[in-house]
Amino acid sequence: MFVIGSGAKHLEDEMRQFGAEILEVELRRFPDGEKYVRVMGSGSEATVISSTFYPQDERILELLLIGDALRERGFEKLRAVIPYFAYGRQDRVVKEGEPISVRAVMRALGLYYDELYVVDIHNPKTLSYFPGKAVNISPARAITEYFRGKLGEGIVLAPDRGALRRAKVVAELIGVEYSHFEKHRISPTDVEMRPVEVDVSGKNVLIVDDIISTGGTMIKASSILKKLGARRIFVGVTHGVFAEGAIERVSKAVDELAVTNTIPTPVSKISIVPDIVSLKPNRG
Amino acid sequence: MFVIGSGAKHLEDEMRQFGAEILEVELRRFPDGEKYVRVMGSGSEATVISSTFYPQDERILELLLIGDALRERGFEKLRAVIPYFAYGRQDRVVKEGEPISVRAVMRALGLYYDELYVVDIHNPKTLSYFPGKAVNISPARAITEYFRGKLGEGIVLAPDRGALRRAKVVAELIGVEYSHFEKHRISPTDVEMRPVEVDVSGKNVLIVDDIISTGGTMIKASSILKKLGARRIFVGVTHGVFAEGAIERVSKAVDELAVTNTIPTPVSKISIVPDIVSLKPNRG
Repeated sequence: MFVIGSGAKHLEDEMRQFGAEILEVELRRFPDGEKYVRVMGSGSEATVISSTFYPQDERILELLLIGDALRERGFEKLRAVIPYFAYGRQDRVVKEGEPISVRAVMRALGLYYDELYVVDIHNPKTLSYFPGKAVNISPARAITEYFRGKLGEGIVLAPDRGALRRAKVVAELIGVEYSHFEKHRISPTDVEMRPVEVDVSGKNVLIVDDIISTGGTMIKASSILKKLGARRIFVGVTHGVFAEGAIERVSKAVDELAVTNTIPTPVSKISIVPDIVSLKPNRG
Repeated sequence: MFVIGSGAKHLEDEMRQFGAEILEVELRRFPDGEKYVRVMGSGSEATVISSTFYPQDERILELLLIGDALRERGFEKLRAVIPYFAYGRQDRVVKEGEPISVRAVMRALGLYYDELYVVDIHNPKTLSYFPGKAVNISPARAITEYFRGKLGEGIVLAPDRGALRRAKVVAELIGVEYSHFEKHRISPTDVEMRPVEVDVSGKNVLIVDDIISTGGTMIKASSILKKLGARRIFVGVTHGVFAEGAIERVSKAVDELAVTNTIPTPVSKISIVPDIVSLKPNRG
């Protein structure tokens, strides 16, 4: 039984098409800005789905209120599915005095939810801050299905070494080669990006990453790939946290830009709904 | 040592005048809307103060992030002072399927804070949802000091029986009589409000309540008091959660409207800062 929060309204129709049972919920706000939540129906297990894109703090609070309402209603086992997990990049103390923000959110959710499912969280190690079972769903199936036919005998590239694993899984699912870009400082002010140990000349390339915001890296990578003679250039990213104008700039620089629907955007053409409705949570 | 959150910036100058030691904190937001928090300095005990007026969900999240940062920095004892506590009125299930929202917020704060101080929370019983020590600070000292000279030998009235205790404490501190309004249904569509067992004729009246939003009750009460021959009519309320235009409408209907500075508004003329800086928290 699914409960759809404000951050997953855009997934509801597709979830229904996949046969997901959906519990009705009333979500509104009082004139002073406080959220009002009411869940209809009853049961013993529920899966609450809501992606925490902007306004992320409101969606996080809403998840707590829905959790409280379900517990009050007698639900015994609660799962949270949070395709885009806010604060995922605030995963360590860079300067003294900073919080590990993702930990605070994980702990708060742990007050109400027994299990947590996220899609391609920035640092999967942060799932250990959640007190219960926590699962990172790979976007590879979704990205692969979307780009397989377009890529053909191409190459999958990660924009940096840290993003290699995701690109590797996609490449292996498609059955093509993969590599990553590396940065070389060529002058005190200039850094060069180059794909490592792979010849892109005459080939289609798919660049795969977890988050895109300004798109600067993708635009730079695309210009380098063109100089190296690449044929068609595709960008397939999990979370489209786009800065203003970024969709247009990246779309102009590459042959196709597509992100998953963890966040609704005009280029959220890759659906992670099949991965969510087929979740087989542990019983008991 | 105080840490001042975004919901208490308006109290900072006065707190400094009272000699409060204040720990520097950096509060900003990333372009995607996520909050960034950084606390400077170190110690073992800190009191974080932030009122959770609109945008309340952001301020609640900020309190969790500040708490996480302080714990990470080695602070052992943390107190939260939340003069206006958001979701305080969502204190019970009215319709099946609703959460007890105030409980969810109390529990989340309990993840990081050992003690909680609030000012005149709507239902003091809800403090039991906070896992640690929780204290409801009375607004009576502040309201009394502000209105004592203006009221003279007047009467303190509560707008309904439920608000009587607050009015009684104010009246006893000033040393005047007190009562409350009662509602009588005089026709299927009309309800009459009357002060109970008290003669307001020729006397100044101070109406005391915890929250004012539209101000409808206060305007109605004032018109009745005028008909009954009251002299000057004052309204002294703890939390000014004003709907648009309410300050002007109420100000026109009464001789003076004043609320405390738990929420900054143009009529937040009553300060609760003395009650906060003098808190003597339990040690250890």
